[in-house]
Amino acid sequence: MLDSSSSSPAPLFLDCDTGVDDALAIAWLVASPGVDLVGVGAVSGNVAAATGARNTLDLLALLGREDVPVHLGAHDFLDHPFSGGAPHVHGADGTGGVALPRAATEVSGTSAAQALVDAARAHAGELRLLAIGPLTNVALALELEPELPRLVREVVIMGGAAMAPGNVTAVAEANVHNDPLAAARVVDAGFDLTVVGLDVTMHQRFEEEHRQALLAAGTPVTRVLGEVLEFYFAFYAERFGRPCSVLHDPLAAGVATGDVRLSLAPRVPVAVDATDGPGRGQTIADLRGLYHGFPGSPPVGPGAARVALEVGGDFGAVLLERLLTL
Amino acid sequence: MLDSSSSSPAPLFLDCDTGVDDALAIAWLVASPGVDLVGVGAVSGNVAAATGARNTLDLLALLGREDVPVHLGAHDFLDHPFSGGAPHVHGADGTGGVALPRAATEVSGTSAAQALVDAARAHAGELRLLAIGPLTNVALALELEPELPRLVREVVIMGGAAMAPGNVTAVAEANVHNDPLAAARVVDAGFDLTVVGLDVTMHQRFEEEHRQALLAAGTPVTRVLGEVLEFYFAFYAERFGRPCSVLHDPLAAGVATGDVRLSLAPRVPVAVDATDGPGRGQTIADLRGLYHGFPGSPPVGPGAARVALEVGGDFGAVLLERLLTL
Repeated sequence: MLDSSSSSPAPLFLDCDTGVDDALAIAWLVASPGVDLVGVGAVSGNVAAATGARNTLDLLALLGREDVPVHLGAHDFLDHPFSGGAPHVHGADGTGGVALPRAATEVSGTSAAQALVDAARAHAGELRLLAIGPLTNVALALELEPELPRLVREVVIMGGAAMAPGNVTAVAEANVHNDPLAAARVVDAGFDLTVVGLDVTMHQRFEEEHRQALLAAGTPVTRVLGEVLEFYFAFYAERFGRPCSVLHDPLAAGVATGDVRLSLAPRVPVAVDATDGPGRGQTIADLRGLYHGFPGSPPVGPGAARVALEVGGDFGAVLLERLLTL
Repeated sequence: MLDSSSSSPAPLFLDCDTGVDDALAIAWLVASPGVDLVGVGAVSGNVAAATGARNTLDLLALLGREDVPVHLGAHDFLDHPFSGGAPHVHGADGTGGVALPRAATEVSGTSAAQALVDAARAHAGELRLLAIGPLTNVALALELEPELPRLVREVVIMGGAAMAPGNVTAVAEANVHNDPLAAARVVDAGFDLTVVGLDVTMHQRFEEEHRQALLAAGTPVTRVLGEVLEFYFAFYAERFGRPCSVLHDPLAAGVATGDVRLSLAPRVPVAVDATDGPGRGQTIADLRGLYHGFPGSPPVGPGAARVALEVGGDFGAVLLERLLTL
């Protein structure tokens, strides 16, 4: 993770499927002085890639960052088509039915995969990649540039569920389940990889008081974020008994910017189940060390990752504070 | 689980792969007034089925229960051969290198699968089945008698790992991993099924003081059990930093006899991964209800089971106390 005490902003490329919680993550990144958002790729997931790209353009304009290029990525997954996303969670438009002011900007002429490769070459050894949607674009970038794991400094993904239950099957989290083959390739590629999954994201919440604080702040950005969250909160209200939301993508963004302390995050072997069996889409982390304190040398290289199991502190409060600066 | 306040002993059939912790479980069952051990099947697992059967015969004789018939079961698993068991855990002989006094009794002429079917018919609606090895024999019994789930009152298995890491792969527990196809058939058969896996067994321990107490009691049974445990303790000492053992099979036996209180054991959908993928042998319990308190009606019937997640109390102390009555 980014050392937040470093002096110059760290170049960061985002791949996302905007999406309500992606919108919060984008706002977080723009509000974070430690990172320089050099580009954004859009992939299908919560919504179709083109919809997510449009939402991202509009949100970046609202944030005063029309200068950040947005690149259209994969509509379909590596070995199966996109099938409609999660309109019951994010709304059919990905922004909970709230129409964002339409920006004048359009997607770049470069694909998300190529743009990631270009950014990695331009910032060789320095670029951070934060991927908060299915990993299709990243897998495609690996095809374009097999040396990507050496060019990119570190990768943080929102995905998986190591010991926690899944959210789309008993064991699979949505991003990984959408494109298990892509996730398997990314995990096996040898990136310096941190996996931020449901073990931690399910326990970090944005509450109605946070949402009301955004609305009350009344800037164009905070008002839109507060409005966009209403639909998302309603989805979780059915599950948790009160309007609130978990913080999947923003927490991963907080890890990428170095603001979230992972109090338990062992580096262990990781594999993705890309079979058609009952475990399809599961991110299998080898946590047998939990039985005896992870002795010995942690694995490095392909098929290993830092797996977030516990987070210190309440990220919802930190997130709100930073969003209120917008 | 058996209601321990009921008056007459409940008929119970055991299927096992004796094995050090199987030996403790057998001793527990013989010492438990609430159950009537009507027969034992032997399956390959910790050791070959024939070795496990011999160990069981010798142990039952030592316990004064030569009357309990022991039935030889499957040497090979449903879709692959037995490959040698776990001599590093249980010793090549399954009794940690301790030669048990050789009993005069021999295995019955009835297979373990047929004997289970016969017992289920003889005690229709009353028989309890405790299966603490791979589920090959139980799957074979289902082939002989598809009505077995209606004839058997309840099944308790030692197997699986729901949220806990596995012990032979990142996600698979040894009994289920030995014969995933058999486990899948048993889970899908529609038994009243309780799954006692690593989530609970890994946290219940027998310590060196327990073993010394067995040796000091000095009866033929307690002395042999104390001696047999030495090798098993040495295996775990390498992992836990002190001589001790976890209590896989005895804890399942304690659940079957109604002496172990499961403080968290939701009835949820369960599936076994019988693919050749990275999740092979995983017992997939759908615990998504953990995120919001398991609302709604728990599933019943095929593909559902009560999954032990938490145990109240220290079973090691309870186990020792009962073994000291032998």
